[in-house]
Amino acid sequence: MARIIKDFLWNSGMTVEKMVEDFGSVGYQSIELHNASKVILKMKQSGSKVFLTFTSNMITSGLRGFFAQIVRLGMVDVIVTTSASIEEDIMKSLGEGFEVNSFSADDIALHERGENRIGNIVVRNESYMKFEDKIRIYLNKIYEKTLNINGQKKIYVSDLIKELGKLVFEDTKDENSFIYQTYKNNVPVFCPGIADSSIGFHLHLFCQEHPDFFVDVIGDCKNIIFASNYDEKKGLISLGGSISKHYAIFSGLLNGGFDYVVYLTTAHQSSGSVSGATTKEAMSWGKIKDNASAVTVYGDVTINFPLVMIPVLERLERDGMLENKK
Amino acid sequence: MARIIKDFLWNSGMTVEKMVEDFGSVGYQSIELHNASKVILKMKQSGSKVFLTFTSNMITSGLRGFFAQIVRLGMVDVIVTTSASIEEDIMKSLGEGFEVNSFSADDIALHERGENRIGNIVVRNESYMKFEDKIRIYLNKIYEKTLNINGQKKIYVSDLIKELGKLVFEDTKDENSFIYQTYKNNVPVFCPGIADSSIGFHLHLFCQEHPDFFVDVIGDCKNIIFASNYDEKKGLISLGGSISKHYAIFSGLLNGGFDYVVYLTTAHQSSGSVSGATTKEAMSWGKIKDNASAVTVYGDVTINFPLVMIPVLERLERDGMLENKK
Amino acid sequence: MARIIKDFLWNSGMTVEKMVEDFGSVGYQSIELHNASKVILKMKQSGSKVFLTFTSNMITSGLRGFFAQIVRLGMVDVIVTTSASIEEDIMKSLGEGFEVNSFSADDIALHERGENRIGNIVVRNESYMKFEDKIRIYLNKIYEKTLNINGQKKIYVSDLIKELGKLVFEDTKDENSFIYQTYKNNVPVFCPGIADSSIGFHLHLFCQEHPDFFVDVIGDCKNIIFASNYDEKKGLISLGGSISKHYAIFSGLLNGGFDYVVYLTTAHQSSGSVSGATTKEAMSWGKIKDNASAVTVYGDVTINFPLVMIPVLERLERDGMLENKK
Amino acid sequence: MARIIKDFLWNSGMTVEKMVEDFGSVGYQSIELHNASKVILKMKQSGSKVFLTFTSNMITSGLRGFFAQIVRLGMVDVIVTTSASIEEDIMKSLGEGFEVNSFSADDIALHERGENRIGNIVVRNESYMKFEDKIRIYLNKIYEKTLNINGQKKIYVSDLIKELGKLVFEDTKDENSFIYQTYKNNVPVFCPGIADSSIGFHLHLFCQEHPDFFVDVIGDCKNIIFASNYDEKKGLISLGGSISKHYAIFSGLLNGGFDYVVYLTTAHQSSGSVSGATTKEAMSWGKIKDNASAVTVYGDVTINFPLVMIPVLERLERDGMLENKK
Repeated sequence: MARIIKDFLWNSGMTVEKMVEDFGSVGYQSIELHNASKVILKMKQSGSKVFLTFTSNMITSGLRGFFAQIVRLGMVDVIVTTSASIEEDIMKSLGEGFEVNSFSADDIALHERGENRIGNIVVRNESYMKFEDKIRIYLNKIYEKTLNINGQKKIYVSDLIKELGKLVFEDTKDENSFIYQTYKNNVPVFCPGIADSSIGFHLHLFCQEHPDFFVDVIGDCKNIIFASNYDEKKGLISLGGSISKHYAIFSGLLNGGFDYVVYLTTAHQSSGSVSGATTKEAMSWGKIKDNASAVTVYGDVTINFPLVMIPVLERLERDGMLENKK
Repeated sequence: MARIIKDFLWNSGMTVEKMVEDFGSVGYQSIELHNASKVILKMKQSGSKVFLTFTSNMITSGLRGFFAQIVRLGMVDVIVTTSASIEEDIMKSLGEGFEVNSFSADDIALHERGENRIGNIVVRNESYMKFEDKIRIYLNKIYEKTLNINGQKKIYVSDLIKELGKLVFEDTKDENSFIYQTYKNNVPVFCPGIADSSIGFHLHLFCQEHPDFFVDVIGDCKNIIFASNYDEKKGLISLGGSISKHYAIFSGLLNGGFDYVVYLTTAHQSSGSVSGATTKEAMSWGKIKDNASAVTVYGDVTINFPLVMIPVLERLERDGMLENKK
Repeated sequence: MARIIKDFLWNSGMTVEKMVEDFGSVGYQSIELHNASKVILKMKQSGSKVFLTFTSNMITSGLRGFFAQIVRLGMVDVIVTTSASIEEDIMKSLGEGFEVNSFSADDIALHERGENRIGNIVVRNESYMKFEDKIRIYLNKIYEKTLNINGQKKIYVSDLIKELGKLVFEDTKDENSFIYQTYKNNVPVFCPGIADSSIGFHLHLFCQEHPDFFVDVIGDCKNIIFASNYDEKKGLISLGGSISKHYAIFSGLLNGGFDYVVYLTTAHQSSGSVSGATTKEAMSWGKIKDNASAVTVYGDVTINFPLVMIPVLERLERDGMLENKK
Repeated sequence: MARIIKDFLWNSGMTVEKMVEDFGSVGYQSIELHNASKVILKMKQSGSKVFLTFTSNMITSGLRGFFAQIVRLGMVDVIVTTSASIEEDIMKSLGEGFEVNSFSADDIALHERGENRIGNIVVRNESYMKFEDKIRIYLNKIYEKTLNINGQKKIYVSDLIKELGKLVFEDTKDENSFIYQTYKNNVPVFCPGIADSSIGFHLHLFCQEHPDFFVDVIGDCKNIIFASNYDEKKGLISLGGSISKHYAIFSGLLNGGFDYVVYLTTAHQSSGSVSGATTKEAMSWGKIKDNASAVTVYGDVTINFPLVMIPVLERLERDGMLENKK
């Protein structure tokens, strides 16, 4: 039976859950958003292994704390992200404040003040300097701890991030660090593009100074493949595009494809980009099973991700299915 | 003092108001959405005359009922919309259900079944037929009632819509009709593009049969100009683009420009379109006062309009500033 | 047989025609653009009646001269556009220069200098004033000439535009005016939204002063319906969205739908807007025949329209099928 | 002196160079495209070191041959791209045809036929299999050749790609391979995300089997930093977004920023993504010098890249500044 469009009505004290429930019969992207929320609920109820991918601008934003929270609550099993996510998560744990600014800021003036803009958010040079001081200390600790086998201290990227998560918490006691929560909750974080950004540059400097230290980027492939298997149900929540999205769906392809998929993106399919590649296109590859529950929602992730997740959290809480709920 | 990005955290039973409050320090469009909500609150608190513009696809969606509700609650003083908004509002009052469908529907199959697609919503041919039967009856009643002056029965478009609002309610008792609520609450609805769509075609047929009947499209300009004045504060909420947006801002220009402006749109400025024209661009015209509080939020209106309005409604309700609250 | 992607190679002195020919095996929107060009060629070779729709920002741009040229060359039979197209075409014939500016201009400074921005183009206040002076003179002449029947001087919008085309050329001798070329080549220009913009405002003032003058907006529907018929082949080239696009496809629907359709737009279908409505969606309505050759190309019209048209012009010229070629 | 918008007129046999010259006074993105072409011309005339970045979907398209051509003609000094670019370039050299298909293809049917869709292009499973067979052979040859130092055979990613370029040409004699032309013309190709895609997976398998083989992803940072220096002029042409764009601008930042920058993209800045990050935003970082000539053009790269480059090639050819012109 087809759903019929219903007149949306506000009621006093309206919750996010009620609004998204009503969105199912409102229109256009509100319908897709409702459907995406239902797919994530099914993903969890079916006991699927859940992959979450996001780009680093999500960590620049306040979603960083939300990612930490949903990891703590047991919503996610595997994360794939880009290199700047790691460095910015650490900056924030170190107490560096990112400021709200404007898309039409005077960028030359910002540059003169040592402020770097990401959309309508700015990050100060000082925040990078603080990160650089700390990452050297953390890398030294990780280096010391890493076993030397046949003259080489080898560490997978995902293990490096795990260690960083442990160290940043010991240092700062920040519960909102997503790399700390993934460490604590045993959720591997993959970052195939770790060589990019400030963290990539500092890894490079450190490796130059420590020729026996070997951060294994390519070999980490094994770990994402073994993070799920052919037989278990698998779900994917992909925020934005980029290498994070592709690495996750490629690993899914190697394990028979995903059963439940939600893409939140601003990119359209018209230019053949990964960011805009639809769930429908992914079916041609076997990245998504032909009978998968798959939804794409177009729009800004800082709005749409809380909207799709909150109703799932409310429902799972009522059903006693949330972990570590304090 | 600059606002600092804060980690977004879900709390159990989270309301829309709380979430949008927190969005102010989350990122990208969530910040803009928060700001837009604050601008609308100031618009109302300042006693501004509020113009709302929307395209007909918003009426196709369930926002139709929400528009009726906010008119009833005294949030809006002037509306500008496109022709299909009128016909689809009437269809819905007549009980015609619009169905949720899919953006990737089989359109040839839909055509064979007599179903017409608007994004992921379909409208059946029968709904148009019911509208066509009724509109003739309504036009006859309006014709009868219109005074004959010097051999001509002249009616402004905004007066015609007012009469239709009255008639559709007498016929259907549907409180969710936005043209009924505008009639009842004395909110003029302007529709400079009334000549388009099914309603335009049926007006044309009716006028052919009644050569003394004259629907004055051009002269209605006087009424939108006099709907506000140079001295009073004016606010504009524009959903989507098109002639509706332009007609409202042009009238604002003639009265000294708007003081508070919110645009919700999916179009970007890169192609010089009205839909994508930014609040910043409007300042060069004097359509928006240089010191206006003006925000553009990119994204789907069926998601973003409830999100910006609900916190305003909650706050005004607490402050006892909502009219006709039952 | 499927086309195979071919390596694109530049050759010295490469023509637009050759490049677009090669685009057929390049990728993404370049393929669609190639296909669109082929559909327009078939449209012309089949002897279809060709409808062209565009929004006024296209007239703001230099495409205005290109529209005049293709009308002169016999490429187009019916035009639908928005009100500002008419006023800006006249301004340009009066010698008013529109300046190239920037999307990130200082809009408050522009406002102080009396410059109004449309994307990266500015129009000076003086250009509007010149238009306003002239339009009064032109309207007076048209008024004088219009027959008084039963105390009323009635003129259809499309006839008014025809008269304006004649007058502007008599006044300025500007061959690049599109309303002149449409007048000269007997191509009706429909403008259902004429009530908007400066021209709508001045029509309103003029009608107030001349109560017997009646610009028939709604009745013009008859003329666009009779501009084609059920039996002949029909083609549609729609640039951008808005009321222009919808009015044309609605008239096509009444005559059995279009056989060949090309949409050039920056809007996507995800929000249910007319601008983003695809050719595929139009099939569900019968606006496009199920077996129509229909292509949508995403991108800026100021780039894509010359690219799709030039190969058609080159080919038709070689085949001796261009009219009025000097 | 401001440029004035001019009426665009087609002339018989119009070249791409003439059209793009005229675009400078047409409008919206056509103006930006003209400006971008001028910036690239200045980039070359100033003797700048030119960085080109692109995403792999550009290699899927026919631009792959155009990249090879402009490398051969001496237009580019450094390339940054994503992993799938390498594998698809090799597939094409091996004679695998990618087919033109449709954005609205039946993806389940494609999957059953072993065809994988990227927008409106499909790649067959067989093409991947052929690649997989060959890459093992090529990697073996590279392994044999790589010096064993202290028990380790280490190779930088950019050197690996150079060797692959040499091997693929020896094997296939395909002059249109971009990795061959970069090898031949001594243009380093960086690929910080090499761990992704089929090539990343096969590198992983090969490394597992050859524990002494070490593909250095992180250390390649040194090579991109030394590929330019602080004192020389530097230019950047960035097609699409992703890690390729970011890695290049980060290296530019370390060397004092770029002097000339052109971004071609479909992404807007509204969501804070790298893909949508504007040249203006990059100034706040010092990634682009404050006085840089910098232009962003919105639209599909398969259309816009030939359009911006061809006028540059024509001009440089006339001035005798093209290398290796046969």
